[in-house]
Amino acid sequence: MTSTVVRRVSELTTNDPQLGDGTPMGRLYDAALVIEHGRVAWVGPDRDAPAADEMLDAEDAAVIPGFVDSHTHLVFAGDRGDEFEARMNGVRYDAGGITRTVEATRAATRDELTRDARRRARQLRDGGVTTLEVKSGYELTVEGERRQLAVAGELTAERTWLGAHVVPAEFRHDRDAYVALVVGEMLDACAPLARWADVFCDRNAFSVDEARAILGAARAKGLGLRLHANQLAHGGAITLAVELDAASVDHLTYLEDQDLDLLAAASTVATLLPGADFCTRSPYAPARRLLDAGATVALATDCNPGSSYVTSMSFVIALAVREMFMSPDEALWSATRGGAKALRRNDVGHLGIGARADFVVLDAPRALHLAYRPGTNLARRVYQASLEVA
Amino acid sequence: MTSTVVRRVSELTTNDPQLGDGTPMGRLYDAALVIEHGRVAWVGPDRDAPAADEMLDAEDAAVIPGFVDSHTHLVFAGDRGDEFEARMNGVRYDAGGITRTVEATRAATRDELTRDARRRARQLRDGGVTTLEVKSGYELTVEGERRQLAVAGELTAERTWLGAHVVPAEFRHDRDAYVALVVGEMLDACAPLARWADVFCDRNAFSVDEARAILGAARAKGLGLRLHANQLAHGGAITLAVELDAASVDHLTYLEDQDLDLLAAASTVATLLPGADFCTRSPYAPARRLLDAGATVALATDCNPGSSYVTSMSFVIALAVREMFMSPDEALWSATRGGAKALRRNDVGHLGIGARADFVVLDAPRALHLAYRPGTNLARRVYQASLEVA
Repeated sequence: MTSTVVRRVSELTTNDPQLGDGTPMGRLYDAALVIEHGRVAWVGPDRDAPAADEMLDAEDAAVIPGFVDSHTHLVFAGDRGDEFEARMNGVRYDAGGITRTVEATRAATRDELTRDARRRARQLRDGGVTTLEVKSGYELTVEGERRQLAVAGELTAERTWLGAHVVPAEFRHDRDAYVALVVGEMLDACAPLARWADVFCDRNAFSVDEARAILGAARAKGLGLRLHANQLAHGGAITLAVELDAASVDHLTYLEDQDLDLLAAASTVATLLPGADFCTRSPYAPARRLLDAGATVALATDCNPGSSYVTSMSFVIALAVREMFMSPDEALWSATRGGAKALRRNDVGHLGIGARADFVVLDAPRALHLAYRPGTNLARRVYQASLEVA
Repeated sequence: MTSTVVRRVSELTTNDPQLGDGTPMGRLYDAALVIEHGRVAWVGPDRDAPAADEMLDAEDAAVIPGFVDSHTHLVFAGDRGDEFEARMNGVRYDAGGITRTVEATRAATRDELTRDARRRARQLRDGGVTTLEVKSGYELTVEGERRQLAVAGELTAERTWLGAHVVPAEFRHDRDAYVALVVGEMLDACAPLARWADVFCDRNAFSVDEARAILGAARAKGLGLRLHANQLAHGGAITLAVELDAASVDHLTYLEDQDLDLLAAASTVATLLPGADFCTRSPYAPARRLLDAGATVALATDCNPGSSYVTSMSFVIALAVREMFMSPDEALWSATRGGAKALRRNDVGHLGIGARADFVVLDAPRALHLAYRPGTNLARRVYQASLEVA
């Protein structure tokens, strides 16, 4: 393995407060960084850059850590454009449409699922995503959930079992039997293929008690925990997440003051999905209140065919700034280091010494342009560890 | 020149109500089209497609007319990211920042202006724009405005002279002298290089009386007319535009009922710029009220470094649907045929028989995906007349 020096970086965001300007963004200007064995080995002023085997010229562009997209449902078949269109004409979003994707996904071959999931992962990566979480949840059978996780495993190690996405149609009249299947045979079959367990705990999905049972069983199998919560209504999901020390609680469109206090005191990350709020024409999650309360905030795409067919983290950042009143720096941090914290990863989402060398050279002199020039992909080159991806 | 048949189009939007389903979208499914001499020669079901010299396989993707971006300020130097950041932190947008771009543009070489304008035009084209309007207005001197129009001429025939963008700093204490320069020497110098004249008629810019004098003189020189109006405040600009039979009146964030009636009865197109409303965190222009009143609506990017650094028409469409309550079809029509009408062009913005063969093969089975999958470039291939561009 050779060493590489990245020179002529107009603005380097490390997200390491021990570097650069000492802010949470750990920012340096006219900077360079050195990569050895796929890790960041040195960061400093360009004029002090040491020699290396290879040189990458950033040409006075900004460099940021690769995005960490900590919430996606990439493995699915079919589309729900008609449902989107109806919603834009005034039909309200609820979780019902998920069953349509379940039907289409069950009917797809594994090759079809893999091909389409790869295409979406590629779009995300072309836009700067270097760490990706992928959930199951669109087959809702023992073999189907295993199949989804196997497909996800071709894309990422950050696989999440979401057997408790909705109650499938065949269990409509016996949800207790479905929960029993989930906590029993399905969990046994899926746990070896997943790092995380997630439950959609919301109106029209699973109750807090059901979620507690499922997540408790998953934890006993060694899985980390995450929760879909408060996308559609208020409820007790956040209390449950904090009680179980879940890594992340996601959506949070509806929040009460007591939720803010809970999250501010917990290590559970508040993951916001403004693409879903955009695509469902919902109110935007109250990022400002969460940040001001002291909660740790992540941003993710929620890529899925129903409520957020979004494959661009810079679009998510632009929405977070415009609609959620996050500053451009807060949004960038939440889309990188925040996402890493939501996955309890300390090796990605930043460019401190020893971090994985996952970074993006932007087509811009400052990272601020991600919000300032919305709608266009500004990722000029995307590097994933020692491997150049795009 | 050879003939080309485009086969296996899952959904073809022609914007010609005489074709296909008879709606304004003129839509066909499982369709084909034939191009001869850079023009659409035949449209019909794929099974009836005639032979041609060449075949282009759309692979069951949707085809739409190329976007017509009828309002851009592509020729400029410098960026105003700091101003954007301040605005996101609560500082209100007014026209004052334009003078910063004037300083930077005056200081740039022609080669720099050309290189950067080409890069932006390329981004727009990669996203599906095949007809582009470009304005001057960032030099505000006789020679500078000519220079901007000359650079614009390397990109498009749809050049607009915007000498009356703001009163430049050196005329701050004698605006009458600037207006005299504009209607006299500057117009004489610029008219041969432009098809259109435009005036920023708004608070902090030019008054209705000034705009009337400038546009009247421009019309006498053979230029078509357009107007920036009601971006920052109510005013008489729309009345003036209709009085002068301007081709388009642009922005319209602030509208009164009498404006709706005027526009509904006029041939003047209402051009909306949701990217500017997004980037300035302004209210969105009332597209629904305009459409319901019967006005003709166009959508454009307003690409400029201050209030809308946007180079994606699909981003504009997604905003128009989500934020302005346009239907996905209305938004697509306004971004294609609407833009063409705003430029008084009947040869572009549609794929009726005889139209220029400017079209986009989408990475999607239906054009609806432009709004349904926001933030990602869905233009798989962009064709401009007989020339493949991307």
